[in-house]
Amino acid sequence: MGRVQEDMKRSGSCGLPPALEVMGERWSFLILRAAFNGIVHFENFSSELGIARNILSDRLSRLVRHGVLQRTPCEHDRRKVEYRLTEKGCDLLPAMLALRQWGEKYTMRTPANPVLVDTRDRRPIAPIRIRAADGRELCWRDLAWQDRSEPS
Amino acid sequence: MGRVQEDMKRSGSCGLPPALEVMGERWSFLILRAAFNGIVHFENFSSELGIARNILSDRLSRLVRHGVLQRTPCEHDRRKVEYRLTEKGCDLLPAMLALRQWGEKYTMRTPANPVLVDTRDRRPIAPIRIRAADGRELCWRDLAWQDRSEPS
Repeated sequence: MGRVQEDMKRSGSCGLPPALEVMGERWSFLILRAAFNGIVHFENFSSELGIARNILSDRLSRLVRHGVLQRTPCEHDRRKVEYRLTEKGCDLLPAMLALRQWGEKYTMRTPANPVLVDTRDRRPIAPIRIRAADGRELCWRDLAWQDRSEPS
Repeated sequence: MGRVQEDMKRSGSCGLPPALEVMGERWSFLILRAAFNGIVHFENFSSELGIARNILSDRLSRLVRHGVLQRTPCEHDRRKVEYRLTEKGCDLLPAMLALRQWGEKYTMRTPANPVLVDTRDRRPIAPIRIRAADGRELCWRDLAWQDRSEPS
Protein backbone atom coordinates (compact mmCIF):
# COMPACT_ATOMS: atom_id res chain seq x y z
CA MET A 1 0.00 0.00 0.00
CA GLY A 2 1.26 3.44 -0.68
CA ARG A 3 2.36 4.00 -4.32
CA VAL A 4 -0.16 6.79 -4.66
CA GLN A 5 -0.21 8.09 -1.13
CA GLU A 6 -3.44 9.38 0.30
CA ASP A 7 -3.52 13.09 0.95
CA MET A 8 -4.35 12.97 4.62
CA LYS A 9 -4.93 16.69 4.92
CA ARG A 10 -7.47 17.00 2.12
CA SER A 11 -10.95 16.44 3.46
CA GLY A 12 -13.49 14.66 1.31
CA SER A 13 -10.99 12.23 -0.15
CA CYS A 14 -11.44 9.37 2.33
CA GLY A 15 -14.41 7.95 4.19
CA LEU A 16 -12.54 7.29 7.43
CA PRO A 17 -12.59 10.78 9.03
CA PRO A 18 -16.37 11.25 8.54
CA ALA A 19 -16.97 7.70 9.82
CA LEU A 20 -14.96 8.57 12.92
CA GLU A 21 -16.97 11.76 13.35
CA VAL A 22 -19.90 9.44 13.99
CA MET A 23 -18.29 6.37 15.57
CA GLY A 24 -14.88 7.51 16.79
CA GLU A 25 -15.72 7.29 20.43
CA ARG A 26 -15.90 4.24 22.65
CA TRP A 27 -19.52 4.56 23.76
CA SER A 28 -20.88 4.83 20.23
CA PHE A 29 -19.73 1.29 19.46
CA LEU A 30 -20.95 -0.07 22.79
CA ILE A 31 -24.39 1.49 22.25
CA LEU A 32 -24.39 0.01 18.76
CA ARG A 33 -23.53 -3.42 20.20
CA ALA A 34 -26.44 -3.13 22.62
CA ALA A 35 -28.74 -2.14 19.74
CA PHE A 36 -27.63 -5.21 17.77
CA ASN A 37 -28.46 -7.24 20.87
CA GLY A 38 -32.03 -6.04 20.72
CA ILE A 39 -31.92 -3.24 23.28
CA VAL A 40 -34.30 -0.41 22.29
CA HIS A 41 -35.21 1.53 25.45
CA PHE A 42 -33.21 4.22 27.19
CA GLU A 43 -33.55 2.45 30.56
CA ASN A 44 -32.18 -0.80 29.17
CA PHE A 45 -29.25 0.86 27.42
CA SER A 46 -28.53 2.59 30.73
CA SER A 47 -28.66 -0.55 32.88
CA GLU A 48 -26.92 -2.83 30.37
CA LEU A 49 -24.06 -0.46 29.64
CA GLY A 50 -23.59 1.16 33.04
CA ILE A 51 -23.16 4.51 31.28
CA ALA A 52 -23.99 7.84 32.92
CA ARG A 53 -27.45 8.98 31.84
CA ASN A 54 -26.34 12.34 30.51
CA ILE A 55 -23.63 10.73 28.37
CA LEU A 56 -26.06 8.06 27.14
CA SER A 57 -28.59 10.74 26.26
CA ASP A 58 -25.97 12.72 24.38
CA ARG A 59 -24.65 9.68 22.47
CA LEU A 60 -28.11 8.43 21.53
CA SER A 61 -29.04 11.88 20.18
CA ARG A 62 -25.81 11.95 18.23
CA LEU A 63 -26.45 8.52 16.69
CA VAL A 64 -30.01 9.57 15.83
CA ARG A 65 -28.74 12.83 14.31
CA HIS A 66 -26.32 10.86 12.15
CA GLY A 67 -29.03 8.44 11.06
CA VAL A 68 -27.50 5.37 12.73
CA LEU A 69 -30.46 4.94 15.08
CA GLN A 70 -34.08 5.94 14.57
CA ARG A 71 -36.13 7.33 17.43
CA THR A 72 -39.75 6.15 17.29
CA PRO A 73 -42.68 5.93 19.72
CA CYS A 74 -43.10 2.44 21.22
CA GLU A 75 -45.93 0.51 19.56
CA HIS A 76 -47.51 -0.68 22.83
CA ASP A 77 -46.99 2.43 24.89
CA ARG A 78 -46.86 5.67 22.94
CA ARG A 79 -45.34 7.53 25.89
CA LYS A 80 -42.21 5.41 25.55
CA VAL A 81 -39.57 5.85 22.90
CA GLU A 82 -37.56 3.23 21.05
CA TYR A 83 -34.15 3.53 19.47
CA ARG A 84 -33.84 1.16 16.52
CA LEU A 85 -31.04 0.55 14.05
CA THR A 86 -31.52 2.08 10.62
CA GLU A 87 -30.10 0.48 7.48
CA LYS A 88 -27.13 2.85 7.86
CA GLY A 89 -26.69 1.57 11.43
CA CYS A 90 -26.97 -2.08 10.41
CA ASP A 91 -24.27 -1.47 7.81
CA LEU A 92 -21.81 -0.84 10.65
CA LEU A 93 -21.95 -4.53 11.61
CA PRO A 94 -18.91 -5.60 9.53
CA ALA A 95 -16.77 -2.84 11.09
CA MET A 96 -17.99 -3.71 14.58
CA LEU A 97 -17.42 -7.44 14.16
CA ALA A 98 -13.98 -6.88 12.63
CA LEU A 99 -13.04 -4.86 15.73
CA ARG A 100 -14.56 -7.48 17.99
CA GLN A 101 -12.68 -10.30 16.30
CA TRP A 102 -9.45 -8.32 16.59
CA GLY A 103 -10.10 -7.82 20.30
CA GLU A 104 -10.81 -11.52 20.69
CA LYS A 105 -7.64 -12.52 18.89
CA TYR A 106 -5.28 -10.18 20.71
CA THR A 107 -6.65 -9.19 24.07
CA MET A 108 -8.60 -12.10 25.49
CA ARG A 109 -7.10 -14.94 27.45
CA THR A 110 -10.14 -17.16 27.06
CA PRO A 111 -12.27 -17.53 23.91
CA ALA A 112 -15.22 -15.15 23.71
CA ASN A 113 -18.55 -16.56 24.79
CA PRO A 114 -21.23 -16.63 23.42
CA VAL A 115 -20.00 -17.01 19.85
CA LEU A 116 -21.68 -15.54 16.81
CA VAL A 117 -22.96 -18.28 14.53
CA ASP A 118 -24.72 -18.52 11.19
CA THR A 119 -28.31 -19.54 11.92
CA ARG A 120 -28.32 -21.89 8.91
CA ASP A 121 -25.44 -24.20 9.89
CA ARG A 122 -24.88 -23.09 13.53
CA ARG A 123 -21.17 -22.77 12.82
CA PRO A 124 -19.18 -19.71 13.99
CA ILE A 125 -18.91 -17.00 11.35
CA ALA A 126 -15.64 -16.63 9.45
CA PRO A 127 -13.00 -14.05 10.35
CA ILE A 128 -13.67 -10.81 8.49
CA ARG A 129 -11.17 -10.39 5.67
CA ILE A 130 -10.26 -7.98 2.90
CA ARG A 131 -11.09 -9.44 -0.51
CA ALA A 132 -10.45 -8.68 -4.15
CA ALA A 133 -13.35 -8.09 -6.53
CA ASP A 134 -13.17 -11.79 -7.47
CA GLY A 135 -13.25 -12.92 -3.84
CA ARG A 136 -9.56 -13.73 -3.23
CA GLU A 137 -8.36 -12.89 0.28
CA LEU A 138 -5.96 -9.96 0.32
CA CYS A 139 -3.45 -8.69 2.85
CA TRP A 140 -1.83 -5.28 3.26
CA ARG A 141 0.98 -6.08 0.80
CA ASP A 142 -1.56 -6.83 -1.96
CA LEU A 143 -3.09 -3.35 -1.80
CA ALA A 144 -2.24 -0.13 -3.61
CA TRP A 145 -3.82 3.29 -3.92
CA GLN A 146 -4.87 4.27 -7.39
CA ASP A 147 -6.08 7.61 -8.62
CA ARG A 148 -9.61 7.40 -10.00
CA SER A 149 -8.56 9.19 -13.18
CA GLU A 150 -5.92 6.52 -13.92
CA PRO A 151 -6.99 3.73 -16.25
CA SER A 152 -7.06 0.41 -14.38
CA MET B 1 -29.17 -11.85 16.26
CA GLY B 2 -30.10 -12.17 19.88
CA ARG B 3 -31.48 -15.61 20.86
CA VAL B 4 -28.75 -15.99 23.42
CA GLN B 5 -28.17 -12.40 24.38
CA GLU B 6 -24.69 -11.26 25.20
CA ASP B 7 -24.09 -10.33 28.79
CA MET B 8 -22.93 -6.78 28.27
CA LYS B 9 -21.89 -6.25 31.86
CA ARG B 10 -19.64 -9.29 32.16
CA SER B 11 -16.12 -8.40 31.13
CA GLY B 12 -14.05 -10.97 29.30
CA SER B 13 -16.97 -12.31 27.30
CA CYS B 14 -16.58 -10.15 24.18
CA GLY B 15 -13.61 -8.76 22.29
CA LEU B 16 -15.20 -5.38 21.54
CA PRO B 17 -14.62 -3.53 24.83
CA PRO B 18 -10.89 -4.40 24.97
CA ALA B 19 -10.54 -3.47 21.27
CA LEU B 20 -12.13 -0.11 22.06
CA GLU B 21 -9.74 0.34 24.98
CA VAL B 22 -7.03 0.46 22.33
CA MET B 23 -8.79 1.96 19.31
CA GLY B 24 -11.92 3.65 20.66
CA GLU B 25 -10.74 7.15 20.02
CA ARG B 26 -10.67 9.06 16.79
CA TRP B 27 -6.93 9.79 16.64
CA SER B 28 -5.93 6.16 17.09
CA PHE B 29 -7.54 5.23 13.77
CA LEU B 30 -6.15 8.31 11.99
CA ILE B 31 -2.63 7.50 13.24
CA LEU B 32 -3.15 3.92 12.09
CA ARG B 33 -4.24 5.16 8.67
CA ALA B 34 -1.09 7.27 8.42
CA ALA B 35 1.01 4.24 9.43
CA PHE B 36 -0.64 2.15 6.69
CA ASN B 37 0.29 4.98 4.30
CA GLY B 38 3.94 4.53 5.14
CA ILE B 39 4.40 7.32 7.70
CA VAL B 40 6.96 6.28 10.35
CA HIS B 41 8.41 9.47 11.89
CA PHE B 42 6.90 11.63 14.60
CA GLU B 43 7.39 14.79 12.51
CA ASN B 44 5.54 13.30 9.56
CA PHE B 45 2.63 12.04 11.66
CA SER B 46 2.47 15.53 13.14
CA SER B 47 2.46 17.40 9.82
CA GLU B 48 0.22 14.93 7.96
CA LEU B 49 -2.42 14.72 10.67
CA GLY B 50 -2.33 18.26 12.02
CA ILE B 51 -2.56 16.85 15.52
CA ALA B 52 -1.22 18.63 18.61
CA ARG B 53 2.23 17.27 19.48
CA ASN B 54 1.35 16.33 23.05
CA ILE B 55 -1.72 14.39 21.91
CA LEU B 56 0.26 12.68 19.14
CA SER B 57 2.96 11.75 21.61
CA ASP B 58 0.39 10.33 24.02
CA ARG B 59 -1.45 8.35 21.32
CA LEU B 60 1.75 6.93 19.79
CA SER B 61 2.92 5.77 23.24
CA ARG B 62 -0.45 4.21 23.82
CA LEU B 63 -0.39 2.33 20.50
CA VAL B 64 3.18 1.16 21.26
CA ARG B 65 2.12 0.06 24.75
CA HIS B 66 -0.71 -1.98 23.25
CA GLY B 67 1.60 -3.54 20.67
CA VAL B 68 -0.11 -1.97 17.63
CA LEU B 69 3.02 0.00 16.69
CA GLN B 70 6.66 -0.84 17.36
CA ARG B 71 9.13 1.87 18.28
CA THR B 72 12.55 1.22 16.75
CA PRO B 73 15.67 3.31 16.02
CA CYS B 74 15.87 4.47 12.40
CA GLU B 75 18.30 2.36 10.33
CA HIS B 76 20.05 5.33 8.70
CA ASP B 77 20.11 7.67 11.66
CA ARG B 78 20.14 6.02 15.06
CA ARG B 79 19.12 9.25 16.77
CA LYS B 80 15.76 9.10 15.02
CA VAL B 81 12.93 6.81 15.96
CA GLU B 82 10.47 4.98 13.74
CA TYR B 83 6.95 3.81 14.53
CA ARG B 84 6.09 0.76 12.47
CA LEU B 85 3.00 -1.44 12.39
CA THR B 86 3.30 -4.77 14.14
CA GLU B 87 1.39 -7.84 12.99
CA LYS B 88 -1.24 -6.95 15.60
CA GLY B 89 -1.47 -3.47 14.07
CA CYS B 90 -1.68 -4.80 10.51
CA ASP B 91 -4.54 -7.02 11.63
CA LEU B 92 -6.62 -3.88 12.24
CA LEU B 93 -6.80 -3.25 8.49
CA PRO B 94 -10.15 -5.06 7.93
CA ALA B 95 -11.79 -3.05 10.74
CA MET B 96 -10.32 0.20 9.45
CA LEU B 97 -11.35 -0.45 5.85
CA ALA B 98 -14.85 -1.52 6.90
CA LEU B 99 -15.24 1.82 8.71
CA ARG B 100 -13.78 3.69 5.74
CA GLN B 101 -16.14 1.98 3.31
CA TRP B 102 -19.08 2.79 5.57
CA GLY B 103 -18.00 6.43 5.67
CA GLU B 104 -17.67 6.45 1.89
CA LYS B 105 -21.10 4.95 1.40
CA TYR B 106 -22.98 7.20 3.78
CA THR B 107 -21.15 10.44 4.30
CA MET B 108 -19.41 11.39 1.10
CA ARG B 109 -21.01 13.28 -1.74
CA THR B 110 -18.28 12.38 -4.22
CA PRO B 111 -16.57 8.99 -4.52
CA ALA B 112 -13.40 8.65 -2.44
CA ASN B 113 -10.15 9.23 -4.26
CA PRO B 114 -7.64 7.57 -4.48
CA VAL B 115 -9.26 4.14 -4.41
CA LEU B 116 -7.75 1.05 -2.84
CA VAL B 117 -7.04 -1.57 -5.50
CA ASP B 118 -5.69 -5.10 -5.61
CA THR B 119 -2.16 -4.87 -7.06
CA ARG B 120 -2.75 -8.02 -9.12
CA ASP B 121 -5.76 -6.92 -11.19
CA ARG B 122 -5.80 -3.16 -10.36
CA ARG B 123 -9.51 -3.41 -9.60
CA PRO B 124 -11.02 -1.78 -6.47
CA ILE B 125 -11.25 -4.16 -3.51
CA ALA B 126 -14.63 -5.65 -2.64
CA PRO B 127 -16.86 -4.26 0.11
CA ILE B 128 -16.02 -5.91 3.42
CA ARG B 129 -18.73 -8.40 4.36
CA ILE B 130 -19.65 -10.85 7.08
CA ARG B 131 -19.36 -14.42 5.85
CA ALA B 132 -20.27 -17.90 7.01
CA ALA B 133 -17.58 -20.54 7.51
CA ASP B 134 -18.28 -21.73 3.95
CA GLY B 135 -17.95 -18.23 2.48
CA ARG B 136 -21.62 -17.29 2.02
CA GLU B 137 -22.36 -13.61 2.66
CA LEU B 138 -24.39 -13.06 5.82
CA CYS B 139 -26.46 -10.18 7.09
CA TRP B 140 -27.64 -9.34 10.61
CA ARG B 141 -30.75 -11.52 10.32
CA ASP B 142 -28.61 -14.59 9.57
CA LEU B 143 -26.71 -14.34 12.85
CA ALA B 144 -27.35 -15.78 16.29
CA TRP B 145 -25.44 -15.99 19.54
CA GLN B 146 -24.64 -19.47 20.71
CA ASP B 147 -23.18 -20.56 23.99
CA ARG B 148 -19.86 -22.33 23.54
CA SER B 149 -21.00 -25.23 25.69
CA GLU B 150 -23.99 -25.88 23.41
CA PRO B 151 -23.44 -28.52 20.73
CA SER B 152 -23.60 -26.92 17.26
